[in-house]
Amino acid sequence: MDFFKEIFEVHKRISPYINKTAVLHSSLLNEISGCQVFFKCENFQKMGAFKMRGATNAILQIAESDRPKGVVTHSSGNMAQAVALSARQLGIPAYIVMPDNAPSVKKNAVIQYGGKVTEVEATIEARQKAADEIVAQTGASFLHPSNDIHVILGQGTAALELLEVQPDLDFIFVPVGGGGLLAGTCIAVEAKSDHCKVIAGEPMEADDAFRSLASGRIELNDTANTIADGLRTQLGDVNFPIIQKYTDSIVRVSEEEIINAMRLIWERMKIIVEPSSAVAFAAVLKAKEKLVGKKIGVIVSGGNVDLSRLPF
Amino acid sequence: MDFFKEIFEVHKRISPYINKTAVLHSSLLNEISGCQVFFKCENFQKMGAFKMRGATNAILQIAESDRPKGVVTHSSGNMAQAVALSARQLGIPAYIVMPDNAPSVKKNAVIQYGGKVTEVEATIEARQKAADEIVAQTGASFLHPSNDIHVILGQGTAALELLEVQPDLDFIFVPVGGGGLLAGTCIAVEAKSDHCKVIAGEPMEADDAFRSLASGRIELNDTANTIADGLRTQLGDVNFPIIQKYTDSIVRVSEEEIINAMRLIWERMKIIVEPSSAVAFAAVLKAKEKLVGKKIGVIVSGGNVDLSRLPF
Repeated sequence: MDFFKEIFEVHKRISPYINKTAVLHSSLLNEISGCQVFFKCENFQKMGAFKMRGATNAILQIAESDRPKGVVTHSSGNMAQAVALSARQLGIPAYIVMPDNAPSVKKNAVIQYGGKVTEVEATIEARQKAADEIVAQTGASFLHPSNDIHVILGQGTAALELLEVQPDLDFIFVPVGGGGLLAGTCIAVEAKSDHCKVIAGEPMEADDAFRSLASGRIELNDTANTIADGLRTQLGDVNFPIIQKYTDSIVRVSEEEIINAMRLIWERMKIIVEPSSAVAFAAVLKAKEKLVGKKIGVIVSGGNVDLSRLPF
Repeated sequence: MDFFKEIFEVHKRISPYINKTAVLHSSLLNEISGCQVFFKCENFQKMGAFKMRGATNAILQIAESDRPKGVVTHSSGNMAQAVALSARQLGIPAYIVMPDNAPSVKKNAVIQYGGKVTEVEATIEARQKAADEIVAQTGASFLHPSNDIHVILGQGTAALELLEVQPDLDFIFVPVGGGGLLAGTCIAVEAKSDHCKVIAGEPMEADDAFRSLASGRIELNDTANTIADGLRTQLGDVNFPIIQKYTDSIVRVSEEEIINAMRLIWERMKIIVEPSSAVAFAAVLKAKEKLVGKKIGVIVSGGNVDLSRLPF
């Protein structure tokens, strides 16, 4: 597959099912960062995050004859909601395996979107085992939240839309967790711009991607005590080679820098973003000396936060 | 002055100094309200509220020879910031009289925008007296936050822009406090649409405008214990006749309905709005039975909230 052609096809394919989200900017945040920053607001995406793009594309790639059997994923976060909602939009069942310690607000959101929830112990093994069992029983197709090329290409379409509106960006900043958004953004930028570079922001407390780029192999996190709950996962063997080849660099940020960036975006731009989204803007602020006068895109990955549990 | 012609001139005049704010919608909020709702996001306006429009227009109406002497207003809210910022944009001094119990976050915002703050006792008399003294000493021009035709026409330009994007709206909902936004919106709608009607939302706890429409004269509030801090004021003799003539109706909402509407907008639209802004959408939800299938505009008046003091 020629990823750089395919991503335009993916965008056409998923467009009827997703929001073409707004691109916003703030003169105050430009002043603070010393560059021009354009925020691609995937917090305004259906179900509140870019994951809707990858989930929709991956489901549309399942053979028509297999689709009625449904899809399975395991996730406690936005991918759970994205698979449930895109499956509902396409009229097929969604089986979501969630850890039994997932907040009930997240479980309820999945159920609201029509997902069939199976709760299991909060270990990777238990989650995968439960998903495998559902596949065996129902014939449903398994979707990995970030290490699947169709998911990766879907996530990349956010950057494609951003470059349509702002074609001469010098850098696009994205957060990196499982690596799907970062790999997809790399493909989009490579396909659509001749000089734009991709930089990822990553929490210092879960800096596996930074270490992976340094060592040349997929590193894991022993602990992941970060408020950016969407970024506690590690890279996969499908997205890592793409990230390795096309990512300019990874900027690590502290918890304090994440919370400060989040508060700045809330207060100045008046939009609600998740801590994971704030990681990308925190990276812009940290790297500002090399960005003076540049045009920067930031993928605001999502806006699903529990308003009763804010860090400020 | 022909208000219905003048408002288009006002829009041209202030356009270089204000943001043409986005219009957003949410399929989930459409589902909940049973109609199509388009939110004119003045929370994305410079300094975070529509007041920037009226302040800019009023200052531009001051004779060129008087402008260097500056402007004066008394306000503890968004008008204080709006006058400070628009004066700075136009290169003239701004004197802001604020009650000594105003939150320091608001005082600091005014100072950040270059406003010269005078603190006085928190009574209407003390505020007006201090403003009069500044006028006497400096020759600065006094701007009333809502009872000035230039301010009113400026505020109305938000509805004008909304009707440019969505020309066939059936109703526009706005919050009513001092009456400037409501009167301005009435003029814009009368000037630009042949069938759209204007409905105001007002807190039950400060329902002076509702009672004024009923009695035919300007009524006051004995108490104004509402979270919608921008709406605790009363109508004035300039805006009241316009409101009387052109407002379809006023829908009163409880504190609980305001907080619910605010939370819905935050959670579903991922944008930050003040309680005063939520009053307009709360009124849509309350009036939904008469709005089935209609196209509704809502002026989201502002997004300046203290994130450390949320009602949820």
